[in-house]
Amino acid sequence: MAHLSDRIRALFSPNRQLLIQLEHLIGFVPKRIVFYQMALMHKSQPEGENESNERLEFLGDAILGAIIAEYLFKKYPNKPEGFLTELRSKIVRRETMNNVAMQMGLNKLMHYNQQDKGLRSSHIFGNALEALIGAIYLDRGFINTRDFILNHFIRSYIDLDKMESTDSNYKNQFLSWAQRNNYTVSFETLSENNEGQRKLFTVGIMLNGELFASGTGYNKKEAGQSASQKGIEKMNQM
Amino acid sequence: MAHLSDRIRALFSPNRQLLIQLEHLIGFVPKRIVFYQMALMHKSQPEGENESNERLEFLGDAILGAIIAEYLFKKYPNKPEGFLTELRSKIVRRETMNNVAMQMGLNKLMHYNQQDKGLRSSHIFGNALEALIGAIYLDRGFINTRDFILNHFIRSYIDLDKMESTDSNYKNQFLSWAQRNNYTVSFETLSENNEGQRKLFTVGIMLNGELFASGTGYNKKEAGQSASQKGIEKMNQM
Repeated sequence: MAHLSDRIRALFSPNRQLLIQLEHLIGFVPKRIVFYQMALMHKSQPEGENESNERLEFLGDAILGAIIAEYLFKKYPNKPEGFLTELRSKIVRRETMNNVAMQMGLNKLMHYNQQDKGLRSSHIFGNALEALIGAIYLDRGFINTRDFILNHFIRSYIDLDKMESTDSNYKNQFLSWAQRNNYTVSFETLSENNEGQRKLFTVGIMLNGELFASGTGYNKKEAGQSASQKGIEKMNQM
Repeated sequence: MAHLSDRIRALFSPNRQLLIQLEHLIGFVPKRIVFYQMALMHKSQPEGENESNERLEFLGDAILGAIIAEYLFKKYPNKPEGFLTELRSKIVRRETMNNVAMQMGLNKLMHYNQQDKGLRSSHIFGNALEALIGAIYLDRGFINTRDFILNHFIRSYIDLDKMESTDSNYKNQFLSWAQRNNYTVSFETLSENNEGQRKLFTVGIMLNGELFASGTGYNKKEAGQSASQKGIEKMNQM
């Protein structure tokens, strides 16, 4: 996609350096640099107070979700919806996105308050990657964004086979974390409701007697997995 | 989009009636009817056990989310991310989708177990509308799906001004429901965790002393709203 005319334009641009870095990252020279500058602007910067990447993150997150959904839908024609949903959530979860963003080197291009050590653990690079996807979409449209996500994101950084077989037994993962940290854990059924002909269960994880996370599902096992997944997200933030 | 050749094809098709009904609904004659037939097949039908609309619903939900995100992003250039997220969730929530699907008459085209009275309250028509969006996407691609969503969904059925100003004070809504049903309600802060420099609160709604729903947010008010929203969803299923 890197046309010669775009290259020549980049060479004479005041944003020469950024354009070259972005070309390296996304595979083409941006046309409208302003979207990308916004995608790289965290609200912890003074300039970011009015114009940060949060709106672009909202857009990019949605576009990414749609493109991954289509990709998985077509790649796994015989798998049920639950499989697709679970695999997508593994791909787009904050930890994955943040890791990929750092492997891409997106953190080096970002503007954020580097004094704020807490920011590094709050997935701002993954959020910026979503914002970058929003910027590409506005700059180049759906098809080019799909090319970027398939070629520069999924095929370059996501090991689908590994992810598919990754222990998605969140309950085991959660229990082993709780054990390492000497918490007393119990799973309790908080409620059972009827949804159509099916029952919907809510299971809560009690940590030292206090509700730590809860999840819902059409059976207790599913609800316990959902609660554990939320518990894991929460423990990652602790 | 309704080309004459598509019309002629429809007239001589064994699926003539369905093609004409669909043209009326979506504004063009489908090319590959098989996607639409699948979108209209609920898993409560014997034929739906292997091939129901659930996978298409997964795809359509994602495509819808992306297109609404772009639409709101462009329509409200000065609104923050939180506004866009909230408005989108009002548009795509199960109740809205189900109502629109019924106004469209999608329920009349669907195949589902009509003996199962519980199904009608479990948003199967809204789910089928999402599946229909998935079918349109596979049949006609992104741009045509966007046209359908903007012209036949948003502009025809969604009153954005009204939705924008709708009481999104879920806590008030929840409290008035609980009062009507003589429940004792209290809101309790279940946990406070650090996420970067920010605190993340979890607030639970206790109904007659039992945890009914919980939600998280960056302050207690936000967490209470989120818990109330989940409480409302849950009460709608009761």
